[in-house]
Amino acid sequence: MSDHDRLDRQLDFLLEVDRLKQVFRRTWLLNLSRYENDAEHSWHLALAAALLTEHAAAEIDLGKVLEMALMHDLVEIDAGDTYAYDDVARQDQAERERRAAERIFGLLPADQGARTRRLWEEFEARHTPEARYATALDRLLPFLHNYHTQGKEWQAHGVTACQVLERMQPVAEGIPALWPRVERLLRDAVEKGYLRA
Amino acid sequence: MSDHDRLDRQLDFLLEVDRLKQVFRRTWLLNLSRYENDAEHSWHLALAAALLTEHAAAEIDLGKVLEMALMHDLVEIDAGDTYAYDDVARQDQAERERRAAERIFGLLPADQGARTRRLWEEFEARHTPEARYATALDRLLPFLHNYHTQGKEWQAHGVTACQVLERMQPVAEGIPALWPRVERLLRDAVEKGYLRA
Repeated sequence: MSDHDRLDRQLDFLLEVDRLKQVFRRTWLLNLSRYENDAEHSWHLALAAALLTEHAAAEIDLGKVLEMALMHDLVEIDAGDTYAYDDVARQDQAERERRAAERIFGLLPADQGARTRRLWEEFEARHTPEARYATALDRLLPFLHNYHTQGKEWQAHGVTACQVLERMQPVAEGIPALWPRVERLLRDAVEKGYLRA
Repeated sequence: MSDHDRLDRQLDFLLEVDRLKQVFRRTWLLNLSRYENDAEHSWHLALAAALLTEHAAAEIDLGKVLEMALMHDLVEIDAGDTYAYDDVARQDQAERERRAAERIFGLLPADQGARTRRLWEEFEARHTPEARYATALDRLLPFLHNYHTQGKEWQAHGVTACQVLERMQPVAEGIPALWPRVERLLRDAVEKGYLRA
């Protein structure tokens, strides 16, 4: 592949992923004006990763975490956002996302597409310190949004404290310093009726 | 400051910057459905930085560029987006953004706020290889959006090819490999009437 083709593919990829700005999540912005989209969320996640590094459970390569955060939801351009507490949609989520990864990372020059895809797979597998740390934050942020919007989305789906507690376990593993806060907010959310006991 | 206060300040900061998702730029999404906001743009910029590193004019620390990209528009939470071709608004832009930096980075623990602010100032000053590379991409992306939306926003403001050429100079400096493309698209934009000659 000539350098010309290479740069063309990279630019085409950057234009294609503009679509991530149109993939909406089931998370309200804090001012309750609308749902958050995946591009905004990816930015928020990466920024959180940069700012909370000192609290990571293990030593991490921040550059790698940031790349992971920026790319972790790209597959949702094709596969859509799957709501964390929607057990039906989650059944074929892995297969939908695998096909999406094939197409989307396949737009890049082969070496870069393969590297980027491995980074996404590493995030999904949650075995490395970087993936565990990124996942902790990926769970923490919507939790904070839910709490600070009085559980609007939790209530719409009848989500229970048990479900949230299970969903939040990666926080205990990836950023232990945050866990007491999560437990406190969770108790408070139940007391205030944001979340079913 | 106890660890408790430190983490509280960091989390409060992360909640505060949710507002960046409501700061709209004068750049259309590629599907022309609406303007892009600063959080989405910051994500797109950071992703572009991760993918085009090989084309940077000088050796760069990608981790630093990514942090810079994630934070480069935070001041616009208070200062608002200033349109690149609005000479009146640009007169007091620096002062508005300085005050915003004071407040916003001041929300973080002091050491982190100072470090983050220095990173933003480094971006603004455009003297280091990282800042030059990030700026090149910060100019390139809206240019591509303008071109691929048939110059809708350029036309709304009567922007000329000369103005765009000047605005795009940092691309020639930060990512020389991109310059021939920029020139080609610029000529094409004039021929197609997207942009005034």
